[in-house]
Amino acid sequence: MTDLALGVDIGGTNLRVGAIDPSGELAARRSVVTPAGAGREPAAAGRDLVSVIVDTAAEVLADAGGPADARVPMGIGFAGGISRDGRAVYGSNVSTRDFPLRDEVSSRLGHDHVVVVNDANAATWGEFCHGAGRDAGDLVMATIGTGVGGGVVSNGNLVMGSQGFGGEVGHMVVARDGWRCTCGHRGCLEAYASGSALARHATALIDDGGSSLLQQIGDFTPADVTWAASAGDDLALAAIDRLGGWLGIGLASLVTLLDPDVVLIGGGVTEHIGGWLLPAATAAMQGQTFAGEWRDDPEVRLAALGDRAGMIGAADMARRAAEGGMP
Amino acid sequence: MTDLALGVDIGGTNLRVGAIDPSGELAARRSVVTPAGAGREPAAAGRDLVSVIVDTAAEVLADAGGPADARVPMGIGFAGGISRDGRAVYGSNVSTRDFPLRDEVSSRLGHDHVVVVNDANAATWGEFCHGAGRDAGDLVMATIGTGVGGGVVSNGNLVMGSQGFGGEVGHMVVARDGWRCTCGHRGCLEAYASGSALARHATALIDDGGSSLLQQIGDFTPADVTWAASAGDDLALAAIDRLGGWLGIGLASLVTLLDPDVVLIGGGVTEHIGGWLLPAATAAMQGQTFAGEWRDDPEVRLAALGDRAGMIGAADMARRAAEGGMP
Repeated sequence: MTDLALGVDIGGTNLRVGAIDPSGELAARRSVVTPAGAGREPAAAGRDLVSVIVDTAAEVLADAGGPADARVPMGIGFAGGISRDGRAVYGSNVSTRDFPLRDEVSSRLGHDHVVVVNDANAATWGEFCHGAGRDAGDLVMATIGTGVGGGVVSNGNLVMGSQGFGGEVGHMVVARDGWRCTCGHRGCLEAYASGSALARHATALIDDGGSSLLQQIGDFTPADVTWAASAGDDLALAAIDRLGGWLGIGLASLVTLLDPDVVLIGGGVTEHIGGWLLPAATAAMQGQTFAGEWRDDPEVRLAALGDRAGMIGAADMARRAAEGGMP
Repeated sequence: MTDLALGVDIGGTNLRVGAIDPSGELAARRSVVTPAGAGREPAAAGRDLVSVIVDTAAEVLADAGGPADARVPMGIGFAGGISRDGRAVYGSNVSTRDFPLRDEVSSRLGHDHVVVVNDANAATWGEFCHGAGRDAGDLVMATIGTGVGGGVVSNGNLVMGSQGFGGEVGHMVVARDGWRCTCGHRGCLEAYASGSALARHATALIDDGGSSLLQQIGDFTPADVTWAASAGDDLALAAIDRLGGWLGIGLASLVTLLDPDVVLIGGGVTEHIGGWLLPAATAAMQGQTFAGEWRDDPEVRLAALGDRAGMIGAADMARRAAEGGMP
């Protein structure tokens, strides 16, 4: 019991808390709706968030049979920019701005074994320690959800960067002046390889004269494309193939720059279309990687931990920090 | 004297050897023509290279007043792919293939304080330890020469990757299916931001109807563009601006992924046009970096060590290795 650590994953939609043992197994978990704080002052939104984290963590610790007053390390992954001193600088879907999340949680818990990092970095670390990257020394991960996130482990160290903003795989440029991205720029990997891009690729194929079950749906969504692909719709499958091709180009840049031995593809979208995406992305990656004829291609795999990766990675980081290690 | 280390920089054209003190100063240096080994068997070319390295190093040590029989650590930067165990897998302009460079040099020297790495990684490490990146914690460098090289330092560690092929900044994709690159692929940063690309940009501007001094030269070279820019030719200056814009897009991907505090631009081309390139690249980088409004922009600077960076970095790595540190 005393070896449990808490992992918190603050996503745009759900806030997940797990009590996690040293082998990465969840002893208990709960999920609540993320208090997005719409209409609240940024600081008040931050305090609401802290309350939900602390209360849910106490419940999860009780579920796991742990003592309520224990100084259990807590790692928090947050969907947004986290500074090296644990401030939530901005949030993808939470209105908190430049909020001292680590210090406020620490103050409420009464101990300083609290670590806050970007959620995709936490998930990457989770897969590296306990998931599909367990055997890797150098790992890159791209997570395909509404957007594209990810992370980098170099020689066993998580790359967080000078300000804590490292690992934003989705906003590397793959096509200068290309498709508009949600970040406001153009040509980012996310614009071409996110779940949202799936409908864009299908639309482009229809505009090129293709025919599809999707044409019976007025304003189709990425989920509709996934459904159509499952029904054997060739155009939907071609859209997934295009997305995989773009993802592979992004992965090729990562491999060329970082030379990992393992590449992981994760995120909610891969739960549905990962089996189609993996070969398309791998082929495109291999075709574009620098000096491909001289190197062993990295293994490209699907992530293994699903929506637990962020909790597991954050908890591991907090455990190490409490023991005087990273980060 | 006993504190000297040898740094060897095997470029496509010149092979430089320096005897370097712990503060990064050169006590002596020599430069010879790189034995490219054209027409030689790859293994024979490798042995020729080893002989030139060992003989030149002995001369440089003598120049520096060092004892000929000392077990002076030697670091070697090689223009090509170097495996983690010091094999020269392929060379950019040297016909050696899969040659055990480290072990052969080590055998000739009679000691094993020999380190072999990619030349651009060595130069990046040199700038990090003793050059324009001395104050950085997280550094990226792009070197603009005939091609585009570079390297990455993350949290004080040189990113070499699982096979030793990390840091190939020039072959990240900036425009899928774009201009052809010397590596055989399309759309690499090198295709748009190398010295060779300078003439391409000028040609494109002329094809778009621009007029230039360059039109008086039949088949103009990148050096001609530099000359025309120095003479105030607007089109040549615009070509440099375009190159800088593309370089900035590549740097934006690096900053988005790695969040460095310092970005360096080096390489032979910057000695001539660095003053024009730096502002163009910086502006384009800042315009494309993810979450730019929430972060401090990294400082973008010109590299400081010129053609000594590779020798200095390689020597430092060998010194550390001899003392039991990296790599």
